[in-house]
Amino acid sequence: MSTTLSRVRAAYARIEAVDRPEIWIDLRPRAEVETEARALDDRVARGERLPLAGRLFAAKGNIDVAGLPTTAGCPAYAYHPAADAPVVAGLRAAGALLLGTTNLDQFATGLVGTRSPHGAVRGAVDPLRISGGSSSGSAVAVALGLVDFALGTDTAGSGRVPAAFNGIVGLKPTRGLVPTEGVVPACASLDCVTVFARTLPEAEGALAHMTTGTVPPSVPVRTPGPWRIAVPPLAQLGELDEGWADAYEAAVRHLAASGAEIRPLDLTPFTEAAAMLYEGAFVAERYTAVGTFVDKLTEEGGAGLDPTVAGIITRARDIPAHRLFADQDRLAALRTRALAELADADALLLPTAPGHPTLAEVAADPLGANARLGRFTNSTNLFDLAAVAVPAGEVNGLPFGVMLIGPAHTDERLARIAGQLQPETRLAVVGAHLTGQPLNPQLLSLGARLDRTTTTAPVYRLHALGTTPPKPGLVHVGEGGAEIETEIWRLPAEGLGRLLASLPRPMTLGRVKLADGTTTPGFLCEPSALKDAEDITRYGGWRNYVSKG
Amino acid sequence: MSTTLSRVRAAYARIEAVDRPEIWIDLRPRAEVETEARALDDRVARGERLPLAGRLFAAKGNIDVAGLPTTAGCPAYAYHPAADAPVVAGLRAAGALLLGTTNLDQFATGLVGTRSPHGAVRGAVDPLRISGGSSSGSAVAVALGLVDFALGTDTAGSGRVPAAFNGIVGLKPTRGLVPTEGVVPACASLDCVTVFARTLPEAEGALAHMTTGTVPPSVPVRTPGPWRIAVPPLAQLGELDEGWADAYEAAVRHLAASGAEIRPLDLTPFTEAAAMLYEGAFVAERYTAVGTFVDKLTEEGGAGLDPTVAGIITRARDIPAHRLFADQDRLAALRTRALAELADADALLLPTAPGHPTLAEVAADPLGANARLGRFTNSTNLFDLAAVAVPAGEVNGLPFGVMLIGPAHTDERLARIAGQLQPETRLAVVGAHLTGQPLNPQLLSLGARLDRTTTTAPVYRLHALGTTPPKPGLVHVGEGGAEIETEIWRLPAEGLGRLLASLPRPMTLGRVKLADGTTTPGFLCEPSALKDAEDITRYGGWRNYVSKG
Repeated sequence: MSTTLSRVRAAYARIEAVDRPEIWIDLRPRAEVETEARALDDRVARGERLPLAGRLFAAKGNIDVAGLPTTAGCPAYAYHPAADAPVVAGLRAAGALLLGTTNLDQFATGLVGTRSPHGAVRGAVDPLRISGGSSSGSAVAVALGLVDFALGTDTAGSGRVPAAFNGIVGLKPTRGLVPTEGVVPACASLDCVTVFARTLPEAEGALAHMTTGTVPPSVPVRTPGPWRIAVPPLAQLGELDEGWADAYEAAVRHLAASGAEIRPLDLTPFTEAAAMLYEGAFVAERYTAVGTFVDKLTEEGGAGLDPTVAGIITRARDIPAHRLFADQDRLAALRTRALAELADADALLLPTAPGHPTLAEVAADPLGANARLGRFTNSTNLFDLAAVAVPAGEVNGLPFGVMLIGPAHTDERLARIAGQLQPETRLAVVGAHLTGQPLNPQLLSLGARLDRTTTTAPVYRLHALGTTPPKPGLVHVGEGGAEIETEIWRLPAEGLGRLLASLPRPMTLGRVKLADGTTTPGFLCEPSALKDAEDITRYGGWRNYVSKG
Repeated sequence: MSTTLSRVRAAYARIEAVDRPEIWIDLRPRAEVETEARALDDRVARGERLPLAGRLFAAKGNIDVAGLPTTAGCPAYAYHPAADAPVVAGLRAAGALLLGTTNLDQFATGLVGTRSPHGAVRGAVDPLRISGGSSSGSAVAVALGLVDFALGTDTAGSGRVPAAFNGIVGLKPTRGLVPTEGVVPACASLDCVTVFARTLPEAEGALAHMTTGTVPPSVPVRTPGPWRIAVPPLAQLGELDEGWADAYEAAVRHLAASGAEIRPLDLTPFTEAAAMLYEGAFVAERYTAVGTFVDKLTEEGGAGLDPTVAGIITRARDIPAHRLFADQDRLAALRTRALAELADADALLLPTAPGHPTLAEVAADPLGANARLGRFTNSTNLFDLAAVAVPAGEVNGLPFGVMLIGPAHTDERLARIAGQLQPETRLAVVGAHLTGQPLNPQLLSLGARLDRTTTTAPVYRLHALGTTPPKPGLVHVGEGGAEIETEIWRLPAEGLGRLLASLPRPMTLGRVKLADGTTTPGFLCEPSALKDAEDITRYGGWRNYVSKG
């Protein structure tokens, strides 16, 4: 069975099994998606290069998807876009397959994931806790393995808080790097499209097809040496959930142990700006976006309007412009201080959120609980910074996450530093796990991403083993060997462990020597398997043997 | 008599003679200024390099000057600054001498020059017409020759409209190039400090000491070739005063005749943005700056408040922030269109204003007359562009002015293009017109600016003539000559004509050959003057002879 189709079927089965209907606003009909999957598989089989072939994704319900209504979580707001938003179009052009649109805090107004007429989105790990928002459905869909990655948006932290609460990665790119056309604005001057995935390579692989290419993601020049990580005094983090300070300090120690230099930073300008986002005049931009609509719908009875969201937007109508100018002025001064604090570091490390409330706690104090969640995320877009949110262990059995924050256009640097917290490895693949081969979906579900295609050093022979499904065995012979076609995949070190745990005999994982002289972990096999196995070295690789054999 | 002191005395005499008390808010006591002038002359005599020595200037009353109150045209607002604003400090450090602070449209709110409790500032040429504003006093002080240059500010056009109405030059630098610290904000995010002078070299010479040096005034790379000047269709300029369209077209023809390529431009985004400045939400920034003060003063009876200005600022209090966000969004779109229109040109040429009203016309319709004046200037700072306003002839005996507008940081390029409309020349000076010598003030009053100090080619002899004051005669001899110390001055071609018109016998103006092989107009003398004149060639120059003789 071909890759994409098999993964679609597995995904729909899992969607049914997890029984979290609140994740979706519009899940596409399975038959329609299977037809699209077959077409994609056919294109790959014909040799077309589709870097995201086999990848399944979802889009937050405030992002245009041709053929589905854009609702922003408000049914009365729905419109039918004529075309995909550029981010969706870019991913689809690269071969990714969209399963549907996901639930959100209405009009992307909130960090909780409970403000929606489609229902509160429950946390992926503990359904009594919130998912975080506003990109709630997208984050949980990724965390539960329903899709490989999903699109969110981030104004105050909507692309990062839900990542932390559900144990996944959230990339919040530099403003302007990813086009926001075809996205319902929250605060148009601050909004970013983000991507969630279970692994950094998966998220970065998707992001590469979401950028316009017109804004260079270049990392400013830095002097060589260890990463310099800015860390505020613990007292400046304010009140954290029980065990979260320890988990944060463990992440700091982890980076230090991997060679990073830790240096102090005054968090005050960051937290002062964060407080301005909802308390100040900036919230008026939400009225600019949808205020007239909300006022009209309220007059007509307010059906399908979330009362908390409607209240925030309606109250923003009367904020005077002269206060906004004063706030913009104050923000500029805080930003200057913040950038000075960052100047001497490659990134600021923070907990993504100060704590993870239950659904009941948020219901009891919708505004207060929400405001607390943005303490560390709110200032990022106000200051025009980039951020990467990654898992960093667990506290009391629940995911704990941290953020790396840096100046605009340091996206790649932040991801590399975050990789220190999310160690990844490479894997050499020569047989059934190759792109388009039957076991390739297994790699994809581990969050692996194709790095490059190469060959082994000329010291191997390849044999066809009698397994089901058929697999080759790679054997080191030294003299008399040949170069064998090899794909190098990047995947989380943890994923490699899971692969090993489920590896069937006679396959083994060992070190494979490549044409460039380097070695990398890769598939080999037990010697016993070679008995009666046909030597197929002359084909130069498994794919060639399969197609000609 | 030394340069600065003599010029100060002449200036105070002229200030008395012109009898325009409304120009000044605080004119410094003559005795105090003379003391400062003597000190400056002493420093020059001791050999100190003060590039603006001998230059007299004034500062608009919203700019901090240590020792004078900053009023912004509202006596009740007055405060006593502890230090000069950086722009004033920079000019004083370079040797320029400040005579006082000038009148303005209160809180820099207006383009008319009539909105002040210190009286309406009358036009320099026709006192029945407005001076233009808000930098009214500064512009008229320059136009009437009371000072060499003066500082203004420009938010909507306050540094350019009064330049046009009074027949002088106004440089509106790129935002951020000149520091605005120590300036009472009008719209803090848009305000620029500007400079008025009678000639471009004078204005550029002052501007060089006003910039922070941290923002590079670099001109973006352009392909070599003639200047490309964008010119809109005449119909897009709207209604102009009688004769102004002809004068504008003459300026276009003048640039074309000097080699510029004229190309069409759609002015719509510029005029649409201009209309937003007072009609839209941007005016709320004026309330941010001084609204609380104006409200309080109004409650207390409003003494010294200009009623038109107070009305504008008070009404801005209730503009909602969501409208501001919408306006900022619309402005960004208009700016993109405007920059695209400019992309293919080095500068946009426009009339500085559409017409020049009388004081009576403005009194009859204070808001309407003012709004019309900003049609071409309002959009410049909103779009973050640079501009240079220069005289371009007369219409019915009144000054007519045009503007060159270009992208941020094209300040130097714009001045060079404007120079085509304001031809300048160089003058070689070897005697009594040298820096610090008795006739140097004559050069300064013609708007001349020292370009460099060099020597003649070694083909001249120098003689001490029996004139009053004493002058040398420079004589070309070819063989047997020597290099004579020479200052090269830049001045308007028109100024050279005025110099020649008043030149006493036996001095002549001819071409002088310099050490680098080039030739330039310069002072020579009639052969008859050499009879009985001492040959002082061995001193190497006039200054050396005077100090040692």
